[in-house]
Amino acid sequence: MTLAVHLERGRQQVEQALDRALPARDPDPCRLVEAMRYTLLLPAKRIRGIICLTVAEAFAADPGRVLPLAVAVEMVHAASLILDDLPAFDDAERRRGATTCHRVFGESTAMLASIGLLAAAFRHLARNGRTRWFGADDATRTVAVLAEAVGEDGMVVGEALDLAARGRELTLDQLERIHALKTGSLFIACTAEAARLAGAGPAERNALETYAKNLGLAFQVVDDVLDVAGDPARTGKDAGADREGASFVRFAGVEGARRLAAELVETAVAALAPLGPRGARLGEIARFVLERDR
Amino acid sequence: MTLAVHLERGRQQVEQALDRALPARDPDPCRLVEAMRYTLLLPAKRIRGIICLTVAEAFAADPGRVLPLAVAVEMVHAASLILDDLPAFDDAERRRGATTCHRVFGESTAMLASIGLLAAAFRHLARNGRTRWFGADDATRTVAVLAEAVGEDGMVVGEALDLAARGRELTLDQLERIHALKTGSLFIACTAEAARLAGAGPAERNALETYAKNLGLAFQVVDDVLDVAGDPARTGKDAGADREGASFVRFAGVEGARRLAAELVETAVAALAPLGPRGARLGEIARFVLERDR
Repeated sequence: MTLAVHLERGRQQVEQALDRALPARDPDPCRLVEAMRYTLLLPAKRIRGIICLTVAEAFAADPGRVLPLAVAVEMVHAASLILDDLPAFDDAERRRGATTCHRVFGESTAMLASIGLLAAAFRHLARNGRTRWFGADDATRTVAVLAEAVGEDGMVVGEALDLAARGRELTLDQLERIHALKTGSLFIACTAEAARLAGAGPAERNALETYAKNLGLAFQVVDDVLDVAGDPARTGKDAGADREGASFVRFAGVEGARRLAAELVETAVAALAPLGPRGARLGEIARFVLERDR
Repeated sequence: MTLAVHLERGRQQVEQALDRALPARDPDPCRLVEAMRYTLLLPAKRIRGIICLTVAEAFAADPGRVLPLAVAVEMVHAASLILDDLPAFDDAERRRGATTCHRVFGESTAMLASIGLLAAAFRHLARNGRTRWFGADDATRTVAVLAEAVGEDGMVVGEALDLAARGRELTLDQLERIHALKTGSLFIACTAEAARLAGAGPAERNALETYAKNLGLAFQVVDDVLDVAGDPARTGKDAGADREGASFVRFAGVEGARRLAAELVETAVAALAPLGPRGARLGEIARFVLERDR
């Protein structure tokens, strides 16, 4: 199977599960479910969900074992996008090729939709914790890992540090720390947890954690490049929206950032060595991240 | 033990557990943990947490069995207060006798603190799902029940309906529906789940659900009365902050709302009949809700 077919199949599998995980419409006269579905189901790469499925495939585990996690992580990611686009953050107009959630539904509904998606992610993991593939112990552990990736050791502190850094000069360490928390923690959490669910051994799990850490950062660096040098018609979001924030391009210039992204991807691929041939597809996915900028 | 001593002991037990459940300070140069601790730990009644402990006591269950739930529900409640006070909602100045979170820490940090507290609630349940008193099955179920109470079948849709109703005339049914979702769903979830954890039988659990439903609504009606007729020095929040929203006082006047609250409390107390003498303390707590207005 080519990478393109693998990605497309994974994307469809994740999106069908996302579609089923929320009610189809609002039972009440407000547009909350509509707002939740709007940002969650707009066309997207589903890279986090696909990585979960690819890790399961690498260890010949049933996809049902990681699908609840793939759904939950995409829900958390969508919740974070809604938040990120709000006037108090990036005040963005476009996301996933469409008008941002708060500009369609209003700011307060967007905030509630973000919280609703976060609750839906944990509910989905917990409700699925009684299936053949995914038990209560799995659900409990996965909820803990995902909640840690969101909370004050993860995503929200990355966002807070990013805001606090606006307009300031940062060292590369500081910049990496912000993105390790803001984007990396969710990437690492879903990859490492998928590896555990798929039955990977300790060495393989460490390898995948290093892979995810570097890939998450590469993803962010490429995002920063696309933010200044990308075509909004292809990126689907505002150009220059993150200009004020902690950007690798501001730090190293466009070419420096491109070199950094390539290095991070090579580090991610090299980290897969303990997996042997099992890691091939994950290596292809890492290299694909750089393609977004071509 | 008098009711006052019972409430004070419960309050202390819940607050000590809350204090331990979050890091003491921010590891990074931002004020996120500080903002989370600020609203969470300001002096509060802890009525939801105390109900969990009281239900455990009624069935002679170890308090450790319901304490994770008591902590999680108070975290979710604090997260909802931060959100409720934001400019896009009530734009409140005072809460729990102090300046609101967003007016101390800024709007974006307050939003992140609200999401951080929500994540902390689920993390706390999941991390405690391996203790002697509270297993993985308990944690999984409790996460699902609490997430349902927060999500698009609960709190956030109540908030959305409340916003959509601003300035409109509502029927009593519509008003009750908004508050059943906005406040009631969390009240019912924690009471019903505490009952299950404490080993209550089906009839007792139904009784406690009816108790929680009526008590939650009574609590909201009393809040509405205090909002127009209360002393801000005692309520600890802005007078008239909810004036625009769905208020029982706007519907029935101050005296009508007081009568309604008294009726709801009597219904809550009457619902406890299947518990016999075990329900006495919960009955006292219900009547205490009316005391707040005296």
